[in-house]
Amino acid sequence: MESHEVDSVAVEHGAVESTVPAVPELDEVAMVAARRRQGELTKPPGALGRLEELSIWISGAQGACPPRPFERVRAIVVAGDHGIAGSGVSAYPSDVTAQMVANFAAGGAAVNVLARQVGAEVRVVDVSVDSPAPVGPAGVDGTAPPERYRVRRSSGRIDREDALSVEEAERAFLVGRLVADEEIDAGADLLVPGEMGIGNTTPAATIVALLCDREPIEVVGRGTGIDDARWMVKTAAIRDAMRRGRPFAGNAASVLRVVGGADLVALAGLLVQAAARRTPVILDGVIVCAAALAAERIAPDARRWWVAGTRSPEPAQAIALHALGLTPLLDAGLRLGEGTGALLAVPMLRAAQATLAEMATFDQAGVSGKATEALDAHRAPAEYSDPT
Amino acid sequence: MESHEVDSVAVEHGAVESTVPAVPELDEVAMVAARRRQGELTKPPGALGRLEELSIWISGAQGACPPRPFERVRAIVVAGDHGIAGSGVSAYPSDVTAQMVANFAAGGAAVNVLARQVGAEVRVVDVSVDSPAPVGPAGVDGTAPPERYRVRRSSGRIDREDALSVEEAERAFLVGRLVADEEIDAGADLLVPGEMGIGNTTPAATIVALLCDREPIEVVGRGTGIDDARWMVKTAAIRDAMRRGRPFAGNAASVLRVVGGADLVALAGLLVQAAARRTPVILDGVIVCAAALAAERIAPDARRWWVAGTRSPEPAQAIALHALGLTPLLDAGLRLGEGTGALLAVPMLRAAQATLAEMATFDQAGVSGKATEALDAHRAPAEYSDPT
Repeated sequence: MESHEVDSVAVEHGAVESTVPAVPELDEVAMVAARRRQGELTKPPGALGRLEELSIWISGAQGACPPRPFERVRAIVVAGDHGIAGSGVSAYPSDVTAQMVANFAAGGAAVNVLARQVGAEVRVVDVSVDSPAPVGPAGVDGTAPPERYRVRRSSGRIDREDALSVEEAERAFLVGRLVADEEIDAGADLLVPGEMGIGNTTPAATIVALLCDREPIEVVGRGTGIDDARWMVKTAAIRDAMRRGRPFAGNAASVLRVVGGADLVALAGLLVQAAARRTPVILDGVIVCAAALAAERIAPDARRWWVAGTRSPEPAQAIALHALGLTPLLDAGLRLGEGTGALLAVPMLRAAQATLAEMATFDQAGVSGKATEALDAHRAPAEYSDPT
Repeated sequence: MESHEVDSVAVEHGAVESTVPAVPELDEVAMVAARRRQGELTKPPGALGRLEELSIWISGAQGACPPRPFERVRAIVVAGDHGIAGSGVSAYPSDVTAQMVANFAAGGAAVNVLARQVGAEVRVVDVSVDSPAPVGPAGVDGTAPPERYRVRRSSGRIDREDALSVEEAERAFLVGRLVADEEIDAGADLLVPGEMGIGNTTPAATIVALLCDREPIEVVGRGTGIDDARWMVKTAAIRDAMRRGRPFAGNAASVLRVVGGADLVALAGLLVQAAARRTPVILDGVIVCAAALAAERIAPDARRWWVAGTRSPEPAQAIALHALGLTPLLDAGLRLGEGTGALLAVPMLRAAQATLAEMATFDQAGVSGKATEALDAHRAPAEYSDPT
């Protein structure tokens, strides 16, 4: 299927290896053209702020200037439970994960509402919910058997055992890549990964602490809104999981396997494959950003293909994004996950695309150019000059 | 026309007085209901961050819970030139104002593109462009004679003379109120005031400095992107204008008249009238925020009806918003005006409305409540309890 996999590197999930596609570069020619066009539009240079850099990034990702409107935006909610929830790290019982998957299917959750607002569709993938049979629809059109994506029932309790076996980690990674391929083959041009899983901020925080060499106290957050007693339990769980995971800290895939979970591994696979397939992604909250941090270690430069949606109050998200060199587009205080913080940023991407593609140039509008030489000072620096 | 003007206060534009309608309160009953409903939706309490407070504000403004979708969003670009542009405070010549008004009419400017993205319409009102005849369409449907709104040709050079006569200021304030009334009577349920006018950051910065007792150096910004030489000229112009305006610093209407301009006075009138007519407004960049600061002094508590869109790099905007107690929804680095920074925030208001109105409750979705008593800790404090 994938000619783009010819150039690949190996990833070790502890013992087995799988190949990871090489990450392509953004289209530099399109970015040069986009940067020049920004300077010709009827506005002072730089006056559209982040919309300008975003528009240049979109041009680079699409390999087109002006860029095309996003036609098929897909929110992909990866659902999975975590044994650690049983230790009291969350304010909600694990039952809520399956109940929320049903809520997603019924269209009643925040991710559904925000997806409708931006013309996106929601797909739920149960990789490790704690239910006897996989829950909810699956497949790119909701008709594929959900068994195809289920890796196991819940992930292991990470303070006492590995989240996944080596084989399960391998499978979860491939499931994530499969989902990305399915979506992109069906025409998705912007992916918004999200997640649902009671207890999942605990493995996410642990992953970030191990990969960025931080203490538990630096990464622990309030999650769904826990009280001080549960906060202490959660911090201790992160400490214990870190102790188990520390020998693997140099191998991001192993960290995901030992202290993460099937959902986090699948998200990493999805993120790597999206980059390999030249498909832009908006990162969501702490869970997706923890997976992204690991994915960047597994497939260096994959982050080229990502932007960050909304800053989360979870401290581990800020640490992961800092390590990735990404600054969120929004700071709206969301701490819900599901993909909501990323969906909220979709209008900013659409605004960036539309302003670059639709605004008139000074010449077209017959508007006088700048009165001073200041324009030149704002033009693209020399290294971006068009070589042609 | 206005029964809501019965309860009014006087505003002095230096010598003449006009009545200003009293500012109504937000609907407390609807806000109590909105706050309670936020606690029942299928998400942890507070997890939607600023969307939650926004949704409560929208409910209060509409007097309805759940709130209605915004049906008629109107961007109103108030255009006017400034004599001070002749002193070299801007990187562009004053001709550009009329040229950009033509660009607005042709749909090629950033405000047009961003308005289309959010389903808003753009109206341009020439109150003081430096052209022999008023430019561009006007009136709520673009058919009313533009002469109705033109106050004068350009505003006075504020470092040497008053921006407006007392009569002109009175007229400009009424024009702003008229425009708001026209829009609201035609069904507008969300107003996005913007502006266009070469040189207009100089009067805006001067107004903020006088009303907040700041030094020129604290309020001066780069505007459209001026170089250091023009920056010094601009700072000196603000200093000279402040010297002329300081005797009036205790009267916001007089400050607008002496160191502002017809556009700034009209924006203040529009903002006051929108509040009087219970119509929510998104504030834009430094010009609109300077007018809003004065409008709040003229009609105390008008700010209840406003939210701030995007933080601008212009320092005077931050000072004005701080004085108003408003925190911008976005921080996207826009410094274009036109209403663009406010339009970019429209999707966040729509998201806030939609999540409160469309999400399922825990009961509806059959999702388990929180496992701990933490929920109660997040519930509305006692002073917001429903009195019924």
